Amino acid sequence: MTPADVAPEYIRGLPPYVPGKPSSEVRREQGVDSITKLASNENPLGASPKAIAAVSAVMQGMAIYPDPTGYDLKMALCNRYGVQPEQIVLGNGSSELLDLCARAFLVNGSEAVYSQYSFIAYPVAVKCVGATGVSVPAMDYGHDLDRMAAAITERTRLVFVANPNNPTGTLLTEAQIRGFMTQVPQHVLVILDEAYTEYLPPEKRMDSMALQHEFPNMVVLRTFSKAYGLAGVRVGFAVAHPSVADLLNRTRLVFNVNALAQAAAVAALGDDEFVARTYETNRAGQQQLTAAFERMGLPYVPSYANFVLVDFSGANLPAGEINKQLLSRGIIVRPVAPYGLAQHLRMTVGLPEENDILISALEEILKK
Amino acid sequence: MTPADVAPEYIRGLPPYVPGKPSSEVRREQGVDSITKLASNENPLGASPKAIAAVSAVMQGMAIYPDPTGYDLKMALCNRYGVQPEQIVLGNGSSELLDLCARAFLVNGSEAVYSQYSFIAYPVAVKCVGATGVSVPAMDYGHDLDRMAAAITERTRLVFVANPNNPTGTLLTEAQIRGFMTQVPQHVLVILDEAYTEYLPPEKRMDSMALQHEFPNMVVLRTFSKAYGLAGVRVGFAVAHPSVADLLNRTRLVFNVNALAQAAAVAALGDDEFVARTYETNRAGQQQLTAAFERMGLPYVPSYANFVLVDFSGANLPAGEINKQLLSRGIIVRPVAPYGLAQHLRMTVGLPEENDILISALEEILKK
Repeated sequence: MTPADVAPEYIRGLPPYVPGKPSSEVRREQGVDSITKLASNENPLGASPKAIAAVSAVMQGMAIYPDPTGYDLKMALCNRYGVQPEQIVLGNGSSELLDLCARAFLVNGSEAVYSQYSFIAYPVAVKCVGATGVSVPAMDYGHDLDRMAAAITERTRLVFVANPNNPTGTLLTEAQIRGFMTQVPQHVLVILDEAYTEYLPPEKRMDSMALQHEFPNMVVLRTFSKAYGLAGVRVGFAVAHPSVADLLNRTRLVFNVNALAQAAAVAALGDDEFVARTYETNRAGQQQLTAAFERMGLPYVPSYANFVLVDFSGANLPAGEINKQLLSRGIIVRPVAPYGLAQHLRMTVGLPEENDILISALEEILKK
Repeated sequence: MTPADVAPEYIRGLPPYVPGKPSSEVRREQGVDSITKLASNENPLGASPKAIAAVSAVMQGMAIYPDPTGYDLKMALCNRYGVQPEQIVLGNGSSELLDLCARAFLVNGSEAVYSQYSFIAYPVAVKCVGATGVSVPAMDYGHDLDRMAAAITERTRLVFVANPNNPTGTLLTEAQIRGFMTQVPQHVLVILDEAYTEYLPPEKRMDSMALQHEFPNMVVLRTFSKAYGLAGVRVGFAVAHPSVADLLNRTRLVFNVNALAQAAAVAALGDDEFVARTYETNRAGQQQLTAAFERMGLPYVPSYANFVLVDFSGANLPAGEINKQLLSRGIIVRPVAPYGLAQHLRMTVGLPEENDILISALEEILKK
């Protein structure tokens, strides 16, 4: 008997880790010179120049442990969002915060509710602690909040709500979320994952910090990986009731957020011009892509984020084959079969020229 | 009832998170101009210049997610240590790897064995999953391996062995570890934490990778936070049997190690000159400090790491008061009362001039 043989059954049941290939290998394998990567909802403008300058300014000091309290970043977040430091938990990306919520509030035997076609990190975090994930059928690719409320049992401790949703891009209104919260028992924690919130048009934005204040059993998650362009350095944050934030802070590693990420995030948070440019680039790119999809007769889900989910079920080729042909041209998009969407592909909005490359390739592939 | 009220009892029982103060605040509070920080076993030479250059070279790309497989770093580690990629797990510091071992191999009800006066992250990781920590009395400030072997029960799944040990600096020989491994049941995972191994004199080094190969229920942990000077960017690695590494890789977050850390670690691993200079600086600093402690009649634990544990139980002042007076001079060392060593202080070996500042201050304080 080995240690692996006696590991908990839910750990042994986790999906095996499949190592991917570095882009250099994809490049060699496909024999193409340049890669157009529209797969991971990264910011096509790169990182905020202010964040790059901030990393440059602090990197000489990287032999020193990070500030375990994230003091500067928390102060910047408090100023920006009008919240208190004891409400904030910093994470090694918001994906770590999802994981921390699962570790702090679930046990083997408890349940967590999420929507079909929602972020795949939710079921993974739930499985990692041996809890049971309850997937509620989607409505028009988005959350069916009434059915989600009805799925809550006495064993439920967490509910995940992604808004906008990944990988479909759908949006719930503040009224819908408020209505849902009134149906959720007060001891059940609702995770409102707003990774893509910066891409919302002004008239669709909501004051989720006020909403969190109104409902102490809500935790709002945000990330610096998308509009702030810092996916590579890993930093996200949670805003919660102090009693919830306290437990998450007890559960996290003391040095979970690295020093360069903290400095980059403070700088990025202050770069309104960059975020505005990101928003505008995405808005224009969305129009460019969706106009092309309409021209090609490809149905897509209207998106409030920086990607578009396209439905290829009526195309002349299966989505898997289209993906393969895109890859052979050096274009990487995201197959969403693991989400149960085998005939869809998720495409990140890129720079105008990247979108053009994708559109031309699709036109070529679909014409054959 | 709130979510915090119904969180698992072992989570609610975790020690509350006490936010520290940024050094700028310590500076203001103590009214001193300069701070001498000899508290966290950081590298007084800073980071390897090659690592700083590597971060500078890749930071423009920090909008892109890190390589989830850590391909380049794993290849560099395989070349350096003669291990296979499927044996390696990369972590957000080796502290994350301790945590992953606890998550993957312990459950509420199982037990983990460690030594008294050993690294405080072990009991924390164990408590975080609701398991029971079994602390075995130390022998001469180090591990009593026979008693540790005897403490293994049918519920034991993990044993932590720090070599050299933190915060005492003691060392076990290869023969002692080998003898211990023959007493440990094959399904119990032994974590050999070698965070300080680069500080060992050549004649004390052991081939722990060969030892791991001989005992598949051993996992070797290493860090880039100490001799490689990268504490701020968080990167460590585990070498284990592929079946153990596989479970740890399934349990970890896909993007746990940030992109800048991966680049810095590859560069630092190749900077032999910097590690040699670090070793030499530490050796000389150890001599400088211990000669002074002897002059002052202060007992200390002979250390194989980059710090010295000093015993103030015979001094004219309690260790807590000595610490306070050091702080008032802007000198930060580490009180180790949480380890059950209320009359000791742990002092990191610094640059010659930093060691001088510490020595002069101690002489002044103890003379009074």
